[in-house]
Amino acid sequence: MERESTTITIKETKPDKGKAPLTATTKVADPPRAGWRKGLAIFDFILRLCAIGAALAAAAVMGTTDQTLPFFTQFFQFQASYDDLPAFQFFVVANAIVSGYLVLSLPFSIVTIVRPHAVGPRLLLLVFDTVMVALTTAAASAAAAIVYLAHNGNPSANWVAICQQFGDFCQQVSGAVVAAFIAAFIFILLVVLSAMALRRH
Amino acid sequence: MERESTTITIKETKPDKGKAPLTATTKVADPPRAGWRKGLAIFDFILRLCAIGAALAAAAVMGTTDQTLPFFTQFFQFQASYDDLPAFQFFVVANAIVSGYLVLSLPFSIVTIVRPHAVGPRLLLLVFDTVMVALTTAAASAAAAIVYLAHNGNPSANWVAICQQFGDFCQQVSGAVVAAFIAAFIFILLVVLSAMALRRH
Repeated sequence: MERESTTITIKETKPDKGKAPLTATTKVADPPRAGWRKGLAIFDFILRLCAIGAALAAAAVMGTTDQTLPFFTQFFQFQASYDDLPAFQFFVVANAIVSGYLVLSLPFSIVTIVRPHAVGPRLLLLVFDTVMVALTTAAASAAAAIVYLAHNGNPSANWVAICQQFGDFCQQVSGAVVAAFIAAFIFILLVVLSAMALRRH
Repeated sequence: MERESTTITIKETKPDKGKAPLTATTKVADPPRAGWRKGLAIFDFILRLCAIGAALAAAAVMGTTDQTLPFFTQFFQFQASYDDLPAFQFFVVANAIVSGYLVLSLPFSIVTIVRPHAVGPRLLLLVFDTVMVALTTAAASAAAAIVYLAHNGNPSANWVAICQQFGDFCQQVSGAVVAAFIAAFIFILLVVLSAMALRRH
């Protein structure tokens, strides 16, 4: 029986080879698709490096903002620092977390380059990237709301604009906000790339 | 030659039938997977309805905040409204856009229920949901930064807390912010669900 079955399998393999054109179309189509996925994975890796740059720059620029005005009264010196405003503290912490996550995500990104068909790492990256979209945007827009207030003030709430006095401070903070928005945009791109690589067809 | 090949193809179909159990396992496994995807699609639809509720509530509550204090000076009456603060205006507009998008996305969600294996609509929903994660979070956290300031003020920037006077106003605004964060959380869930439905295995 077993011998017969072996002969049958040999026969089967032959027709399989006869079928080659049909099977070949799917198997020949496979490598380019894998290559396409690999290209996406490499692009993903490069975007992650850019996002690290943007997030680190945002955290570093915001974390080092500190302006002391050249005049002072008897009681205190006028000084503006990022940790006077809770929104800016949150900004620094969030961008530090995002930078740390991005560094930790690089190995997973490399795994998707080496194994373009791996689903697990991509899904993991997609889920965490989506959370990071929210975190980065939250940090950036909270800081942006405060920066806007610092620039323009608000007469209804009787909040004065402080950027007339603290010009350098405001410029540095605005730069950090822009960097964080760039990071958020890159994260959106990363999520879309991962989704395109995950789809079946 | 062609006759030979036809006899070969007849032989081919026979081993194929002999192979049936192998092919059958993949075909039997297919319907439950489709059912699982359909379940995800229905859950997606329900979550979208919840998100519409949250986003509409956020926009409506914020849009109707208007508190007039019972005392007034000779020159003006003390009044707080959402359109005094640009962050709150952005909040209303963003949540209105999000609600509109959600209503428009419902037909696509229904398509994914009817055709659980359709990739196009899911990918479309995933991309736009990701953008909406960013938009909702941006609106919510910008408003949250301003609400925090209204509650606590900031002595460094010489901004006073206005919630002592406008208590009802602050409470309503805080409620709207919470609703928007709930909407943002639902969007993150939607993105993760779409990604899980998109994956190949």
